[in-house]
Amino acid sequence: MSETRTIRIADLTSYDFRRLVQEGPPVVLLPVGSIEQHGPHLPLSTDVILPEEIAMRVAARMGALVAPAISYGYKSQPKTGGGNHFPGTLSLDASTLIAMLRDVMNELVRHGIRHIVVFDGHMENQWFITEAIDLMLRDQRREGIDTVRAIKLGYWEFITPATEEVLFPDGLVSWALEHAAVMETSVMLHLRPDLVRADLIPDHPPAEFPPFDPYPFDLSTIPEDGVLSSAASATAQKGRLVVEQVVPDIANALSAFFARSGG
Amino acid sequence: MSETRTIRIADLTSYDFRRLVQEGPPVVLLPVGSIEQHGPHLPLSTDVILPEEIAMRVAARMGALVAPAISYGYKSQPKTGGGNHFPGTLSLDASTLIAMLRDVMNELVRHGIRHIVVFDGHMENQWFITEAIDLMLRDQRREGIDTVRAIKLGYWEFITPATEEVLFPDGLVSWALEHAAVMETSVMLHLRPDLVRADLIPDHPPAEFPPFDPYPFDLSTIPEDGVLSSAASATAQKGRLVVEQVVPDIANALSAFFARSGG
Amino acid sequence: MSETRTIRIADLTSYDFRRLVQEGPPVVLLPVGSIEQHGPHLPLSTDVILPEEIAMRVAARMGALVAPAISYGYKSQPKTGGGNHFPGTLSLDASTLIAMLRDVMNELVRHGIRHIVVFDGHMENQWFITEAIDLMLRDQRREGIDTVRAIKLGYWEFITPATEEVLFPDGLVSWALEHAAVMETSVMLHLRPDLVRADLIPDHPPAEFPPFDPYPFDLSTIPEDGVLSSAASATAQKGRLVVEQVVPDIANALSAFFARSGG
Amino acid sequence: MSETRTIRIADLTSYDFRRLVQEGPPVVLLPVGSIEQHGPHLPLSTDVILPEEIAMRVAARMGALVAPAISYGYKSQPKTGGGNHFPGTLSLDASTLIAMLRDVMNELVRHGIRHIVVFDGHMENQWFITEAIDLMLRDQRREGIDTVRAIKLGYWEFITPATEEVLFPDGLVSWALEHAAVMETSVMLHLRPDLVRADLIPDHPPAEFPPFDPYPFDLSTIPEDGVLSSAASATAQKGRLVVEQVVPDIANALSAFFARSGG
Amino acid sequence: MSETRTIRIADLTSYDFRRLVQEGPPVVLLPVGSIEQHGPHLPLSTDVILPEEIAMRVAARMGALVAPAISYGYKSQPKTGGGNHFPGTLSLDASTLIAMLRDVMNELVRHGIRHIVVFDGHMENQWFITEAIDLMLRDQRREGIDTVRAIKLGYWEFITPATEEVLFPDGLVSWALEHAAVMETSVMLHLRPDLVRADLIPDHPPAEFPPFDPYPFDLSTIPEDGVLSSAASATAQKGRLVVEQVVPDIANALSAFFARSGG
Amino acid sequence: MSETRTIRIADLTSYDFRRLVQEGPPVVLLPVGSIEQHGPHLPLSTDVILPEEIAMRVAARMGALVAPAISYGYKSQPKTGGGNHFPGTLSLDASTLIAMLRDVMNELVRHGIRHIVVFDGHMENQWFITEAIDLMLRDQRREGIDTVRAIKLGYWEFITPATEEVLFPDGLVSWALEHAAVMETSVMLHLRPDLVRADLIPDHPPAEFPPFDPYPFDLSTIPEDGVLSSAASATAQKGRLVVEQVVPDIANALSAFFARSGG
Repeated sequence: MSETRTIRIADLTSYDFRRLVQEGPPVVLLPVGSIEQHGPHLPLSTDVILPEEIAMRVAARMGALVAPAISYGYKSQPKTGGGNHFPGTLSLDASTLIAMLRDVMNELVRHGIRHIVVFDGHMENQWFITEAIDLMLRDQRREGIDTVRAIKLGYWEFITPATEEVLFPDGLVSWALEHAAVMETSVMLHLRPDLVRADLIPDHPPAEFPPFDPYPFDLSTIPEDGVLSSAASATAQKGRLVVEQVVPDIANALSAFFARSGG
Repeated sequence: MSETRTIRIADLTSYDFRRLVQEGPPVVLLPVGSIEQHGPHLPLSTDVILPEEIAMRVAARMGALVAPAISYGYKSQPKTGGGNHFPGTLSLDASTLIAMLRDVMNELVRHGIRHIVVFDGHMENQWFITEAIDLMLRDQRREGIDTVRAIKLGYWEFITPATEEVLFPDGLVSWALEHAAVMETSVMLHLRPDLVRADLIPDHPPAEFPPFDPYPFDLSTIPEDGVLSSAASATAQKGRLVVEQVVPDIANALSAFFARSGG
Repeated sequence: MSETRTIRIADLTSYDFRRLVQEGPPVVLLPVGSIEQHGPHLPLSTDVILPEEIAMRVAARMGALVAPAISYGYKSQPKTGGGNHFPGTLSLDASTLIAMLRDVMNELVRHGIRHIVVFDGHMENQWFITEAIDLMLRDQRREGIDTVRAIKLGYWEFITPATEEVLFPDGLVSWALEHAAVMETSVMLHLRPDLVRADLIPDHPPAEFPPFDPYPFDLSTIPEDGVLSSAASATAQKGRLVVEQVVPDIANALSAFFARSGG
Repeated sequence: MSETRTIRIADLTSYDFRRLVQEGPPVVLLPVGSIEQHGPHLPLSTDVILPEEIAMRVAARMGALVAPAISYGYKSQPKTGGGNHFPGTLSLDASTLIAMLRDVMNELVRHGIRHIVVFDGHMENQWFITEAIDLMLRDQRREGIDTVRAIKLGYWEFITPATEEVLFPDGLVSWALEHAAVMETSVMLHLRPDLVRADLIPDHPPAEFPPFDPYPFDLSTIPEDGVLSSAASATAQKGRLVVEQVVPDIANALSAFFARSGG
Repeated sequence: MSETRTIRIADLTSYDFRRLVQEGPPVVLLPVGSIEQHGPHLPLSTDVILPEEIAMRVAARMGALVAPAISYGYKSQPKTGGGNHFPGTLSLDASTLIAMLRDVMNELVRHGIRHIVVFDGHMENQWFITEAIDLMLRDQRREGIDTVRAIKLGYWEFITPATEEVLFPDGLVSWALEHAAVMETSVMLHLRPDLVRADLIPDHPPAEFPPFDPYPFDLSTIPEDGVLSSAASATAQKGRLVVEQVVPDIANALSAFFARSGG
Repeated sequence: MSETRTIRIADLTSYDFRRLVQEGPPVVLLPVGSIEQHGPHLPLSTDVILPEEIAMRVAARMGALVAPAISYGYKSQPKTGGGNHFPGTLSLDASTLIAMLRDVMNELVRHGIRHIVVFDGHMENQWFITEAIDLMLRDQRREGIDTVRAIKLGYWEFITPATEEVLFPDGLVSWALEHAAVMETSVMLHLRPDLVRADLIPDHPPAEFPPFDPYPFDLSTIPEDGVLSSAASATAQKGRLVVEQVVPDIANALSAFFARSGG
């Protein structure tokens, strides 16, 4: 069996899975993303593709498995994703996303997994991942299992200042405004150029928001194309740099953490 | 943009999606499967791969879109899937699966879609799909929208007697026992031979179950390999026959139905 | 106290119940049905009456108790019950039915019962019974109790080929189409003739459905009287045969199963 | 068809139900009780039998229908029912009881009923009935229906001072302590003497409780037999008096109310 | 630190809290009220102020802590609070109130508290407090903790006949009708005269209700000012009497109870 | 009535509330905080006190009302609040907090309020406020009301660069690490000096966290006192500056926004 097949749980047979757990249960990375507008140039699944692709590379380095991605995520917000009103943005209620994550993690534990990393690709998911992990740990405590260690991780948090400098030679406006902008576009150009409409990459000044959040959204404050700052300086090379920097850093950090936790 | 890209919602940009809806909202096929043991020879994601692959072909014929698949499904049962205890079987609580389907369908309607087909690949999902559709229609009624038409569909229901005869020249034992057996193995050999461990295809008499369902499962009645009847006579050719027969039949049936419903 | 009174939990005093549990906790049969149209000739409670009456007879044979029936069930579907739109069909949401069954089973366990049989009279209830049992077992596991054994049972599954032949001398069309048809009508004629409108028993060809399920229901495919195949050949004698065959078979199967499970 | 059959929804055919609604939708009485200890002398289903029997008589007088009873109720409390720990007491979580009532009422409204009376036989159910009605009215408002009128009713609230004097010639200790005592025992002796263990009717001083409610229950304050005050003076004659007084009073009050509400 | 600061959990630092638990975990009183109309003369928060003020005095006497009050309560009912339709009445769904109480109690137990008193100021909350306590005890049982003792308490239940006589020299009409009437107005005049509009105290005959509860409310049976009986004879002196009688009685009863429970 | 009394809904009578709504429904500010450790020097209710006090001042300036605060908030996280394990931290499940906020907002709308500001004092609450607002708007849409405007607001977001410079003359380490540090301590010293243990204000280097979040918390990365950066330079004067700057800025921003929204 090829190495790839030992990374994706989806591709394993039940027999493969059993054998891997018996050999010493592997760490499992669970990508979670969103189907969310990413401007005129990036596909709706950008936030699924990025964590899944990066998770695959991290898993390959550290001998982990990647669970089937949860493609749908929490409702896109203006300041982090443009907003839920953009066509094709398909989002979940908080309770649904929490339940989904909780169930999948509980099932992994049921089959012997003890180390889980929720690999997030969509900022809006963060607090619901936190809740899902907390509820899963409670469930497991009541099952008499207290050896589960779970991590919430956004791959972008691992971008170093050095990488940041290459990405934004003129200075980063704000990570919050990076939705569908330089970093995401660059990594997509590197990993899935077939899905990038390079001719439509937007270039306009960054969005400006009031210091509060109105609902229903105040459309007058949201860029019409849903891109929060210019993506004009995105390149596949920058994307490659990001991937090549964060992948080993994440793999090392996770390996070190779980080793310390008795994994 | 290639035709493929216009089929998968995941690959569309928000702009693409808006344009398609404006041109006359397309039918959306929503594949839902499971991560479930499929014996020693088929991958855990068999029930996701099959409906997704078939849905793509149906969509291509009828000008529909395919939404990102929901990979996780309801708990595997002994008589239809071997059972939830097999390693790597990752299942959802009923409430989670219902919520997931309900949210995604509601979101499609929010963006203008009116015709949805839940494209099931896992028998155990059926009644929860029914409930999700019922709750979604209730939600939409309360939003003042009563033009939604939703269909629950298992692709295997479209296999004709003629195809059945080719699949099972010695007679079908029972569709219920076809889990990981001749039909599924054949279609996988046709569509994703890279994921089939042909050397491990099992060949043993069909499982026999009591006329009731005990919980926790009665392991003495479940085949150890989780395959409910022999898959030995599976061939890629049979798989191709199934796909080539059901795809146009499903496309035609759906087109006719939605045309009649005013689509 | 008469034997009957020792069968129905409803008729027991709290003192009776305690004594029975102390003598060795009995098996409890929990009937669950529906209030669902059954054509022009059968009452809305047909699916409650049948499992309750049969459960009483099974309990008498095997020394079990019968819990108060849950009269309301899951939403009637066209292919199995005509559909939820027929007047007087009063159905529950999935979550309600699951909660109801889960609570009652948890309560039985709280009072010392360990062997429970959910005695179903309505096909549409099946998967929700499965979920309720699974959640109850999880609850009990967290209470530190792992000796509960629960069974889901549809009495019709016990009809033997021999009985089937008498019921349908010209061949069974399909069990799925037997709603309010020969079998149910016959058993009602035997058990509750006072509730059968013999003059209104329908006789028309079996319903034909497409191989998918549209929502809202496609009324053009549903027989106007809600009966899925002819009930004209129903007789009380056939009903008696069914009852006299399935009752001992069910009692024996359950006794054997629970004996094996350490009951 | 006998008059009785036109009273119980369970006994109606779908055709009967439709005809009745078309003739002008009748008031529906929905009995809800509990499976709760009632001392050494009364059956666990006392709180179901009483409201169902009385509702039948009320319905006969006013031309109403009686829906299938919800047999299971809220958790028995020491001060009103002895407590949930007594053997055979099978209770529901609040959310389950609320969902059950809400679903059944919503379904009645779906089929054209507009006037519903929740006919309670178990004090502990009261506030959950209130919530279920409130949520059902909200649901219906969102369906665009604002003509539903629902009533919560405990039959004992209709006992007049004159009747009270006959029941308790030496003065009533407290209605709250009447659980399984004079009134309930008397009415059971009148309506279902076959289910009363007359030889075991208890006779001890009334229970005394602190002015607060401790959990888990303080068993030292609860009479060991679960009866809150003496039932020694219960007679069938008293029971008959209660029934004959409250039945017409309830029927008249309901008829007057619904007439005023435009029924 | 002043004594007051050691009574209110809100005013403690985390260090204070830890020290108090280490010294022997104190009893915690958790006030729960409502934002509910109280006629033209009393503030909407009357049902929060009264239990919180009385709980503070009880806590001071017995060395207990007072948790931050839950200000919002269950929906006001006509017979106990005038009704939910009165302007400014802000009420919770049953499930929300139950969840709120359950979470806060579970959290107290997580930090070492074992003796909790839910100190109610609003009659309509009672049954939902019962459910929250029951669910919390279940949660804790599943956490392996069975030493929690929780009490539900309405301060008015402690008013002695002697105090009652002073409050109502001409006889009490009914405690149920005391909403915003003599007792509550008197205690408010004593504790928070700044919040009483003495010039607007109503004086009209007591409300008369039918012996059943109609929904939506029957406004013709509810006093227009929302006061259920005359408050004219309220005085600060009476209020002081109530407080001075119930505070030591509650403190003594709780101390005695928890001492007996091994606190 | 004093001006203060017209600001707090808790202090209004039902009559006052009705009059205010009739005069043109006011904006309502709903403070939501937490009971969360704030080091050795600040009280557990710091995150309730700050938004409530600031909301009162904002309301006074703009003629708004302040609803009773929701004191309990979402689970404290290491990077924003030290973590949920610190003694006395009493937190809610996500679903509870969402339900609480949703109910209170729905109730305000029911009584005629259309402009609501959720005034947050606890960073961890943010996404659950977002969800509550989204669900409330959905509820109201289904009630046929589409004129509600709701705002989520963290008062700290209004601190200007100029104020920031005074607060942190040596530069801000990070807003995320400001928990119980210079800003919060300063504002508490200004507003509630009686609740600050000035002698215990901590002074240690800022916390350092890994770029991911492990659960259960990794206690080795959390400062033992729960304070994320030094509070040593806090002064009442700085606190006063913050309050005096943000209060008018918030009032002006809200007034302008709601004026634009047609309020």
